[in-house]
Amino acid sequence: MARIPDSHPRKKSLLSRERIVYGSSNGLLADSAMIAHGRGEAFDYLLGERTTKSARAAIRESAARLRSAKNPVISVNGNTVLLAGKGALRLGAVIGCPIEVNLYYRTPERVSGLISLLEMQKSEVLEEAAPVGFDGDWVESVGGVRLLGKSPGFRIDGLEGPRSHCTEEGIGIADCVLVPLEDGDRCEALVNLGKEVLVIDLNPLSRSAKEASVTIVDEVSRAFDGILHVLVSDSEYSETDWDNEAVLRSSLEEICDYLSSL
Amino acid sequence: MARIPDSHPRKKSLLSRERIVYGSSNGLLADSAMIAHGRGEAFDYLLGERTTKSARAAIRESAARLRSAKNPVISVNGNTVLLAGKGALRLGAVIGCPIEVNLYYRTPERVSGLISLLEMQKSEVLEEAAPVGFDGDWVESVGGVRLLGKSPGFRIDGLEGPRSHCTEEGIGIADCVLVPLEDGDRCEALVNLGKEVLVIDLNPLSRSAKEASVTIVDEVSRAFDGILHVLVSDSEYSETDWDNEAVLRSSLEEICDYLSSL
Repeated sequence: MARIPDSHPRKKSLLSRERIVYGSSNGLLADSAMIAHGRGEAFDYLLGERTTKSARAAIRESAARLRSAKNPVISVNGNTVLLAGKGALRLGAVIGCPIEVNLYYRTPERVSGLISLLEMQKSEVLEEAAPVGFDGDWVESVGGVRLLGKSPGFRIDGLEGPRSHCTEEGIGIADCVLVPLEDGDRCEALVNLGKEVLVIDLNPLSRSAKEASVTIVDEVSRAFDGILHVLVSDSEYSETDWDNEAVLRSSLEEICDYLSSL
Repeated sequence: MARIPDSHPRKKSLLSRERIVYGSSNGLLADSAMIAHGRGEAFDYLLGERTTKSARAAIRESAARLRSAKNPVISVNGNTVLLAGKGALRLGAVIGCPIEVNLYYRTPERVSGLISLLEMQKSEVLEEAAPVGFDGDWVESVGGVRLLGKSPGFRIDGLEGPRSHCTEEGIGIADCVLVPLEDGDRCEALVNLGKEVLVIDLNPLSRSAKEASVTIVDEVSRAFDGILHVLVSDSEYSETDWDNEAVLRSSLEEICDYLSSL
């Protein structure tokens, strides 16, 4: 693929698109993954491709809940691994939690392929400097992030078929699940199990966005970076009486404000 | 593929998605076609999946311009053929104009494959009843729609490489081009050649939408049906002093009105 010049105004968007095309060509993604990515592109465009004020509030709330959770887990699908796998690994290292590959259209081949990709990304994150403000041992923390999903012996109540499978040590025992780009049914099932469900979704109208405990309406790599930043640099946050409907309304208003400003 | 029940609230959207997945699996579409379709899904969602008032005005204006053009042509890409090939054929029959397969990422295989698909769709449209209000010979009119694009001996000035290729008898001599889902560069090049360019695009912020003579911000099959309906049933329309910027602003307002109503 030709290198996209740094000066290109849509470089980040084009790189993300290339990652999704790569994943699709290599069998890592379901048929509908590219279509889902396109929906995300459109919503991000309407948000001005930036983290809005309401998303920043949801990011702080999510950081607080992840910090205080007993057994947090980051649940990732194919698009998340391709777009932001390294961000998930950095977050797993800072929180000290596992990452579980959990696919709606689950096949053993795709789960294995995504775990291999995460392992490669992990070797890259291991070489990075620790995030400013992180005071643990970076190599040990990154190395300790477990990558789950290959042996999903547990079932999520309320779902049927392969989409109900997960691991016990990950989603099974988790009290708090950070799950970008999740399907609405699965989001609802996790909420019904009494878990805190922190969703990252660019579409404030999606069922996942509406079902979640906290919805971050933001692009997944920006959201991961944002949570990481709060965790390592901001000690002045804690869980609040969170009104998720209000934050979704705010994100719709932010879309309209942005469109009116054009 | 399992049949989607008629009662499913998103049946039309899901059927469109299946068509795009089919086209992609069968080599009819470029890598980015599914992502583009996803963007379209998101914008249509934000419009409430309906033809808005401003789109209806643009549909009437486009019908008037197609009616008065000397050499109109319908330029189609892969997504258009998959989503609305039969609509394009009906429109070609009523206007009496050719359809040209014209691809940004042109390969001879994809052009041939799409023309074959159009030929199959043509045989289906031939079996349909003529649209109410159409007073010609339907079989003769549909049969007479030429399908161009296999031998693109002409070049669009201002473009380079395969994306500049077109046929002389189609886009080459056309004074008016109805072109759904077009790339911004190509839209601009056609406008610079002095042609009327009627664009169908769900994204009112796209470069094509901004460059076009008339932009219909609507889903392609609804827009084709709308133009057809005006042509066969409505004699009270003519070209106007069209303000395309105003119609794009209206479509953004319609998105915000819809979001506020939720």
